[in-house]
Amino acid sequence: MTFAATVLTLYPDMFPGPLGVSLAGRAMAEGKWSLAPVQIRDFAADKHRTVDDTPAGGGAGMVLKPDVLAAAIDHARTLSPEAPVLAMTPRGKPITQPRIRELAAGPGVTILCGRFEGFDERIFAGRNVEEVAVGDVVLSGGECAALMVLDACIRLLPGVMGAPSSGTEESFEDGLLEYPHYTRPTEWEGRTIPEVLRSGDHAKIAAWRKRQAEEDTRLRRPDLWERHRDARV
Amino acid sequence: MTFAATVLTLYPDMFPGPLGVSLAGRAMAEGKWSLAPVQIRDFAADKHRTVDDTPAGGGAGMVLKPDVLAAAIDHARTLSPEAPVLAMTPRGKPITQPRIRELAAGPGVTILCGRFEGFDERIFAGRNVEEVAVGDVVLSGGECAALMVLDACIRLLPGVMGAPSSGTEESFEDGLLEYPHYTRPTEWEGRTIPEVLRSGDHAKIAAWRKRQAEEDTRLRRPDLWERHRDARV
Repeated sequence: MTFAATVLTLYPDMFPGPLGVSLAGRAMAEGKWSLAPVQIRDFAADKHRTVDDTPAGGGAGMVLKPDVLAAAIDHARTLSPEAPVLAMTPRGKPITQPRIRELAAGPGVTILCGRFEGFDERIFAGRNVEEVAVGDVVLSGGECAALMVLDACIRLLPGVMGAPSSGTEESFEDGLLEYPHYTRPTEWEGRTIPEVLRSGDHAKIAAWRKRQAEEDTRLRRPDLWERHRDARV
Repeated sequence: MTFAATVLTLYPDMFPGPLGVSLAGRAMAEGKWSLAPVQIRDFAADKHRTVDDTPAGGGAGMVLKPDVLAAAIDHARTLSPEAPVLAMTPRGKPITQPRIRELAAGPGVTILCGRFEGFDERIFAGRNVEEVAVGDVVLSGGECAALMVLDACIRLLPGVMGAPSSGTEESFEDGLLEYPHYTRPTEWEGRTIPEVLRSGDHAKIAAWRKRQAEEDTRLRRPDLWERHRDARV
């Protein structure tokens, strides 16, 4: 089955962009996923093809019109009726690896990319759109965030990654950061690979990696650590 | 002054990608920022141009070699000596809008993009590299995350955004989510713009927006809300 990605944007030329090469590009060429960029402007109702208007109540910038967005989303739903519709917005729920895994296991995803000051708020309830944030930063538009979400999904599609274990033993999969990695040379500029990793003792190596993952999560991401600890109790 | 972006990657063709059009593309054409994609593989020392090796201690995937990464970073520092060096990795510190603002106010940024299982851990201390995460998801490589970080920086460069207030009254700038936006039509599919926004009473509108921003942050992002509240005490 082909994972169907639909992207609603004012800049369809940005796609596939980086997803046209490397892992994602190969997977696309092999039919493992497909991409339909949709120009939001094509759904404007007037001859000036207006997609935005001034914010109600005043203020800087322009807001994407709910009627135009709705028409674009309705079109996307004819292309991919079962795919959930996500909008990239800093007001959204931060995306997580478990949500990415759910999306990747489904029929596809439709992603709505904002520009300017953002979306008319009514579109989210009016069209059952999931508001999603990728990092606590503000972008010029949702396009780069959409590329990230798609990249995260595509690598999990069946047959895309070489080694199957690469997808499960990594950061966030068990609520922890991944343990640190090392490779040759054994000594580099006076820094050596931790001795345990050179011991050949698989049980000791596994224990060290688990301890490192826990320790690094606790120190670097107290938020994740707290959730991980609560989940274990 | 031109903001100098250097990206160390195995896929330099992915750049500028989406940053070559729209706001970022125009800003680049106007000389407000410059981009130097650097092929990491050019710094491999052997005739096979090897950049990775198996993980010490065993396991799936390949790890980027510290000596090759160091040579690539050293080269980037000759191009842009003052720019901080960031590595995109899920083990990193989540990027924040204040950090983006600092980066945008500086001379530029050098971004190291991983692939495969990631970087040899020694590179971070060995070359003073800041480990940065963008969202709690795992990507096929750091490239899409690098595009996001650059996009977030570029829109803040002097003269890039149209209305200057667009950059400050928005999500995360005061530790809160932004208030919701509305625009015409006043009624859309039975959903109306909140009456206060049509009142013309600027003080009431400002108070409503502040309350909405606080309420939405409290409900949607208790983590941000806690930090915001602590900062006020």
